Amino acid sequence: MLYLIGLGLGDEKDISLKGLEAVKKCSQVYLEAYTSLLSTGLRLSALEELYGRPVILADREMVEQEVEQILEQARTSDIAFLVVGDPFGATTHSDLVVRARKMGIEVKVIHNASVMNAVGICGLQLYRFGEAVSIPFFTETWKPDSFYDKIKANRLLGLHTLCLLDIRVKEPSIESLCRGKKVYEPPKFMTINTAIEQLLQIETNRAESVYNSDTTCVGLVRLGSEAQKIVVGSMRELLTVDFGPPLHCLIIVGNTHPIEDEMLEFFAMPKACFNAQNCTD
Amino acid sequence: MLYLIGLGLGDEKDISLKGLEAVKKCSQVYLEAYTSLLSTGLRLSALEELYGRPVILADREMVEQEVEQILEQARTSDIAFLVVGDPFGATTHSDLVVRARKMGIEVKVIHNASVMNAVGICGLQLYRFGEAVSIPFFTETWKPDSFYDKIKANRLLGLHTLCLLDIRVKEPSIESLCRGKKVYEPPKFMTINTAIEQLLQIETNRAESVYNSDTTCVGLVRLGSEAQKIVVGSMRELLTVDFGPPLHCLIIVGNTHPIEDEMLEFFAMPKACFNAQNCTD
Repeated sequence: MLYLIGLGLGDEKDISLKGLEAVKKCSQVYLEAYTSLLSTGLRLSALEELYGRPVILADREMVEQEVEQILEQARTSDIAFLVVGDPFGATTHSDLVVRARKMGIEVKVIHNASVMNAVGICGLQLYRFGEAVSIPFFTETWKPDSFYDKIKANRLLGLHTLCLLDIRVKEPSIESLCRGKKVYEPPKFMTINTAIEQLLQIETNRAESVYNSDTTCVGLVRLGSEAQKIVVGSMRELLTVDFGPPLHCLIIVGNTHPIEDEMLEFFAMPKACFNAQNCTD
Repeated sequence: MLYLIGLGLGDEKDISLKGLEAVKKCSQVYLEAYTSLLSTGLRLSALEELYGRPVILADREMVEQEVEQILEQARTSDIAFLVVGDPFGATTHSDLVVRARKMGIEVKVIHNASVMNAVGICGLQLYRFGEAVSIPFFTETWKPDSFYDKIKANRLLGLHTLCLLDIRVKEPSIESLCRGKKVYEPPKFMTINTAIEQLLQIETNRAESVYNSDTTCVGLVRLGSEAQKIVVGSMRELLTVDFGPPLHCLIIVGNTHPIEDEMLEFFAMPKACFNAQNCTD
């Protein structure tokens, strides 16, 4: 049996009792580490201590190259594949499930919170979100802007847009690939600030008035952890905020209901402080 | 402190370790029981045994009438308010949070899986969903169809639509209200079959060709529990399925990627059996 187990968003104690029971009876425990993040309160040593067994970090390369072996083990014994958030949250693990099922291996999923539902904590109603978008890191020569059309469609319908921000973990540097020997770049996580800069850059290029620096957004960082922070403000205002360590995500707010407004107010930036002359505290 | 704790979707063991720790230190434990459901594996006695303390069922009336008292308790002691799924999932508890914050009471949220992210298990990617819709029970004189426009907008964009189906728990009967003494109707949960009938009825009325009986859908019932069932088929096909006990939900499938198709195939109805002449098993 292959157990796909969501760890939730905070630390090792966000696993469910059901998830923990499953991990404890598995002969091998893998932690998917290429889309997830270990820096937000989730420490490998804490997981190993809680589970009472070693946890094998499975990065992208390992999963791609050794997936058959991992799944072969699941034919005769119980194998756990741990995923930060929910196994079918922002990043789905459909490919792993498809492979397993094709090999005739039973798969059991143990759900948990994902960024896709936990963002509801800011007060915006989940059923008022349109399509979610991913914002990739721009390079000098590569500035994909397909997210712009999706945000436009959402805004025309008055819907909120969740922007998932790029995570680059264990990416081989282009230089090293040219030299034929892989050297990995340090992990890189997009900040809300970079995301807003890129969004405004694309608005300038496309000029279809989808949003502007006055558009209300919600910045959410380290969701579900003790160090969670939520700030509501215009794009211009949020650009001035230091949100600190990853993970960051951003919501572009659509039309709101009064109950949503009331919740958003709790997270609003102190208005007086945007203009230094008016700042009294 | 007011703890808002998600219980997840299956049974008592879907609570997180963090959630359980919080419940155990609370002096009063309430279980929100007007939007949630106790019939899918979640038994009050099992919760009480696990927590080692009584759990007070808080129905809609109680929450509306006694919310101030509940929150007053949270001023001086730790109070747990348990919610099936995630506190900010399909049904948000923003109003409770707003009230608490206005009274100066600290609120801590412990997330869990919600139907809004757990539907990803069928293989459809969460970021390819448009706005979610609610399908209410039609009556002879009341057939609201605002969901139709939302589904239309989603389908024009090629997006999937999650349909949340009506739950009616502890609703006073109209008759009893006329007599001035409340008598409650038995709980009522919309089945996938009723939802599809109503959807097709509205398509007939509106005739804007948003979907038809050949449109591919996914029926998901008792998500996250041992008795979970997922069936993929056309609306016409799904109408013939007995999905059993609640909760039911339905996805109207938009444009799919190949990896989504591969996953959906696992849940497809046996094609040969739709036409009795072709049915070989």
